[in-house]
Amino acid sequence: MTEKRINWVKLKDFCERLLIKQGLPLEDANLIAMSLVEADLNGVSSHGVSRMKIYMKRIEEGVVRKSSYITIEKEYPGALVVNAHNSMGIVAGVRAIDMAIEKAKIAGTVFVTVKHSNHFGSAAFFTKRAVKYGMIAFAASNAPPTMAPWGACQAYLGTNPLSVAIPTGDDKPIILDMATSVVAQGKIIMAAKNNEKIPEGWAITKDGKPTTDPKEALEGTVLPFGGVKGYGIALLIEILSGILSGSDFGPYLHNLWKDFKTPQNLGHVFHVIDVSKYIEIEEFYKKISTLKNDIKNLKKADGVSEIYLPGEVEMIKSEHAKVKGIVLSEAVLEDLRELANKWDVKFNII
Amino acid sequence: MTEKRINWVKLKDFCERLLIKQGLPLEDANLIAMSLVEADLNGVSSHGVSRMKIYMKRIEEGVVRKSSYITIEKEYPGALVVNAHNSMGIVAGVRAIDMAIEKAKIAGTVFVTVKHSNHFGSAAFFTKRAVKYGMIAFAASNAPPTMAPWGACQAYLGTNPLSVAIPTGDDKPIILDMATSVVAQGKIIMAAKNNEKIPEGWAITKDGKPTTDPKEALEGTVLPFGGVKGYGIALLIEILSGILSGSDFGPYLHNLWKDFKTPQNLGHVFHVIDVSKYIEIEEFYKKISTLKNDIKNLKKADGVSEIYLPGEVEMIKSEHAKVKGIVLSEAVLEDLRELANKWDVKFNII
Repeated sequence: MTEKRINWVKLKDFCERLLIKQGLPLEDANLIAMSLVEADLNGVSSHGVSRMKIYMKRIEEGVVRKSSYITIEKEYPGALVVNAHNSMGIVAGVRAIDMAIEKAKIAGTVFVTVKHSNHFGSAAFFTKRAVKYGMIAFAASNAPPTMAPWGACQAYLGTNPLSVAIPTGDDKPIILDMATSVVAQGKIIMAAKNNEKIPEGWAITKDGKPTTDPKEALEGTVLPFGGVKGYGIALLIEILSGILSGSDFGPYLHNLWKDFKTPQNLGHVFHVIDVSKYIEIEEFYKKISTLKNDIKNLKKADGVSEIYLPGEVEMIKSEHAKVKGIVLSEAVLEDLRELANKWDVKFNII
Repeated sequence: MTEKRINWVKLKDFCERLLIKQGLPLEDANLIAMSLVEADLNGVSSHGVSRMKIYMKRIEEGVVRKSSYITIEKEYPGALVVNAHNSMGIVAGVRAIDMAIEKAKIAGTVFVTVKHSNHFGSAAFFTKRAVKYGMIAFAASNAPPTMAPWGACQAYLGTNPLSVAIPTGDDKPIILDMATSVVAQGKIIMAAKNNEKIPEGWAITKDGKPTTDPKEALEGTVLPFGGVKGYGIALLIEILSGILSGSDFGPYLHNLWKDFKTPQNLGHVFHVIDVSKYIEIEEFYKKISTLKNDIKNLKKADGVSEIYLPGEVEMIKSEHAKVKGIVLSEAVLEDLRELANKWDVKFNII
């Protein structure tokens, strides 16, 4: 079978049209479509257009708000408390971090919580917005329980993602984007969708046994990255996103894939730091450039052909996919075809 | 040989007297002694009084400032830029986070950088200060290079420690305190001091080979926790502590153990969040209490007798050691005995 490569602009437009057809405002549809397609460009297909089917389903079922409504509940010089009122998570996240960026121009640093929100896609989509203002940004979210705390064999924490973006003064910012599980649950979902095995160490069964079967893993729990330390970081994100924000946490959250009656009610946090308030921006960029060059030129371990900065691999993949096209699995393509039929939107991406 | 158990107050007083003998102000001597003894109480002997010998040596050599001098270089509502002017790291860190706590009462959140500082001991010593004000706190520091970026076999990053403390409304805060290496380098130093082997996976030799010999490990590099993700987090701490703060970073830092001519010139960052600005503090405590109880009562994995919250094990050890006494190795006791002789301070701890 010939691999189908899809033009990213066509794919973005197609997703946008689907979302608009359900009544989303153009601006919101654009943000959501961009987030998903950027994830595919970066090679993070677990957070790409494979999510369109469930997003569309949730909008159709009325379990998320179509027309975003996002308010500020409290405001202090360095603090913002945002209520997403069950808007789409990607839209809520963008509004929140954009407000934080504005405020950080005066306060130097701003920490924002977002409550009553939904799945927010790829965390890097938010942090990279701050970079062009010469700001460092953090983004994190909780998620319904799929991960066992260290020592337990029962899910309580989400795979609580974390992204940090560092401006570099060029078009290659340093962008860390990670789940706090060994892998994102999305990768296990993709493996299940594509009937592939998963490596041992990613997850345990519901009885606490190791497994390579993605379906057993999805019934069981994924494991935190880095053992007890990763558990600590995932727990911290749960507390900030779920409790400090005034949202729900752990088992009190509602499932993205299965619950179409009750809003997810999860939360996010964003932290923005205006570099120029701390150090001359040119000095910062110069030192970052030294650090990047130094690391690229370190002695390599056996079998390693290149040392990468966080986000570098994704940028290389993205540049390639922008020219050559995005590869989607047959299963994802089939989902998109079905959506096109159902919502009477022209399936003109291939 | 009978194990010697040492009263923590006597040990603290002894360290204080040593530091005062070299001309440190009482208040600074007290903070440094408390930080070291608390680490020993918590069972983190790598950051305990085993550090007295090197701290005393550095003060004697004049490579750190005896009388702390800590200034604010820039100030914005949510931001503080602190210069430690080569003061002792523990003292600089306490001053910085205390100022952040004060400012956060108004701004809601404050992010502080500290430049031109020195080894700051256990990171939890700072974050726990915020807890009694109902604040969440982060602390991190860079350190001279001992850790290879992912894919390299040459040290560039420090074992860059990170602590986060969450207030819980009782006397059992959640306190994460970790190195971003698989283990703190201090543990490898302790193993070398006590002629013990280290587990495989902690470090590689200078040729990039696995090793269980702590001496080879100290010549080689330690590995980041959680693979490429831990590398990302360690790098982020390096950038915030070393570059954003206006300090030095990576190989441009100076060694704690070997360099008595040039100040370390490392940096720290602290972030303080006033919980009450985001959510009613009683609601926060109630939800944290639910989360703690839930996690303690999850189904346990095979061979696990109890599931712990971050910091819980250290608190249990500390309560025990406060009653039963602190156990120090013969090597550390010998160091302290030598210091007592050299500085003519009564060795009355055992």
